[in-house]
Amino acid sequence: MSDNQLFERVAIIGTGLIGSSVALAIRLNGLAGHVACHDADPEVRARAEALDIADSMHADIADAVGDACLVVVAAPVGACGTIAAAMRDHLRLGAIVTDVGSVKRSVLEAMTPHMPDGVHLVPGHPVAGTEHSGPEAGFAELFQNRFSILTPPGDADTWAVSRIKSLWEGMGADVEIMDAEHHDRVLAITSHLPHLIAYTIVATAADLETELEVKSRDDDVVTTREVIKYSAGGFRDFTRIAASDPAMWRDVFLLNKEAVLEMLGRFNEDLTALQRAIRHNDGDALFDLFSRTRDIRRGVIEARQAGRFHYTENVKSDDEGS
Amino acid sequence: MSDNQLFERVAIIGTGLIGSSVALAIRLNGLAGHVACHDADPEVRARAEALDIADSMHADIADAVGDACLVVVAAPVGACGTIAAAMRDHLRLGAIVTDVGSVKRSVLEAMTPHMPDGVHLVPGHPVAGTEHSGPEAGFAELFQNRFSILTPPGDADTWAVSRIKSLWEGMGADVEIMDAEHHDRVLAITSHLPHLIAYTIVATAADLETELEVKSRDDDVVTTREVIKYSAGGFRDFTRIAASDPAMWRDVFLLNKEAVLEMLGRFNEDLTALQRAIRHNDGDALFDLFSRTRDIRRGVIEARQAGRFHYTENVKSDDEGS
Repeated sequence: MSDNQLFERVAIIGTGLIGSSVALAIRLNGLAGHVACHDADPEVRARAEALDIADSMHADIADAVGDACLVVVAAPVGACGTIAAAMRDHLRLGAIVTDVGSVKRSVLEAMTPHMPDGVHLVPGHPVAGTEHSGPEAGFAELFQNRFSILTPPGDADTWAVSRIKSLWEGMGADVEIMDAEHHDRVLAITSHLPHLIAYTIVATAADLETELEVKSRDDDVVTTREVIKYSAGGFRDFTRIAASDPAMWRDVFLLNKEAVLEMLGRFNEDLTALQRAIRHNDGDALFDLFSRTRDIRRGVIEARQAGRFHYTENVKSDDEGS
Repeated sequence: MSDNQLFERVAIIGTGLIGSSVALAIRLNGLAGHVACHDADPEVRARAEALDIADSMHADIADAVGDACLVVVAAPVGACGTIAAAMRDHLRLGAIVTDVGSVKRSVLEAMTPHMPDGVHLVPGHPVAGTEHSGPEAGFAELFQNRFSILTPPGDADTWAVSRIKSLWEGMGADVEIMDAEHHDRVLAITSHLPHLIAYTIVATAADLETELEVKSRDDDVVTTREVIKYSAGGFRDFTRIAASDPAMWRDVFLLNKEAVLEMLGRFNEDLTALQRAIRHNDGDALFDLFSRTRDIRRGVIEARQAGRFHYTENVKSDDEGS
């Protein structure tokens, strides 16, 4: 038994990027005696099994969670309620259930009704990821020096919260505790809106070369090939974000609707003001705003969230941890 | 004399990120016998001189361009006309004048009237850069494996165009030739709109914690400190882009107004459609769009514009070449 062991048996539900990274990080750091995994998709499950990310892989969720002291639900947030219902009758007394979703209030609402007495729910969210999906994308170091936010309900068991805190710290993360609603507003601006905008601009660019465009403006169509070719000008960063898992992000936007629409409304006002400044040749307004945003970057760098990215040519993917 | 020498004497007007990188790249690759630099800002000029980026540094633009076979104007695009006027009486017969601006039609219009007979104007744009500004940010490898786009006017001197092509190839870039108007539309979507959006969202985030917000919603304000702290969720990438040089970008938006407003209009339509899908819980529409954008990322990676970014903790800046 490892000196670091926190749990005898951990069950991880979902073996995508985050689930497989949690499995690998728990095993690397000796945080559990046994890591059992389940994935509802037989094809994904087979791939996770081939990659040997867990001590045992289960087709039946009941077999995975049966003897677990800790269950980590690592599925798109829209599936958390269904998963909680499926495992409710198999959870062990005293077990802790946590998740890794990017939206917290709706997860709490969806899972709480299915928690049996004596089982402790402590929702969590590691602010870490890459644009890659699936078990192949997982790696044990994903959470190192990243924040993991816990949003325990007001009546949460203190011991259970401290165990989950130790779990994330054991995987190298810094833990913060906040209210679920506040989490959802913070993430709406720091993560959800950036993703929504990145998805939109990449779609806008892709649509420049449609059959209709070619017919109506055949004098000067910007082709998809050109968009890709000259993407180093700034667009490239957006394509990375816009390559993130579609099912995960669909659920995020639907389940954090209120906060996302609020932040989107603010963004739209600001964008409209800039659009007007361009149309009216108001260079001072543009210069002032462009100068102001530099301070935020400085803050990001000072907070050590910026990192340094060394460029290497001719590779098939990039793996920065964001 | 280097085997690679293309020009006896080159003058570079402006010693910011691009100007100083051109100076360093020309010297590293032995493309000129002498590199003379001028910067209108005495403070920037002194810094460039201290960094020893050129063979000679000149306070007077006439001294810099006097004997030059090639003049590279590396200033914000709004200054190109003024610079052309200032140097017109000092240009040598047969000299080639080029620039590095992100907007090409307006540069051509601003500079052409000031070109004396026997001087050849070949506008250019290296699609390369970082979010850092000033002579300290320059480095000789900035243009390696990047595209440099030339937009010679219809009556351009073939010899002059081929010399500028050789210049960029000598600095490691791949050269493409296109029409100035087409360039401006391509860059509006691949570079200008991404920058505009990044500037906007960073400003939106910064404004969440204003005095007014704190007063009106003091129950749940998202602080700037939180925005910075949890920026790894996606926002961080936007802060990098939004740290780019304010004067350069003000000029880009004012001088490529038509194409930027067109692309912004298309983006707004697409964003409004997504906003509506979120409000109406149309998960299928979201999923379809998020799946479609992955193909573009695949194209970017295959075109070798993606690169691999190795993450290093605790540093003060990042230097990826985009």
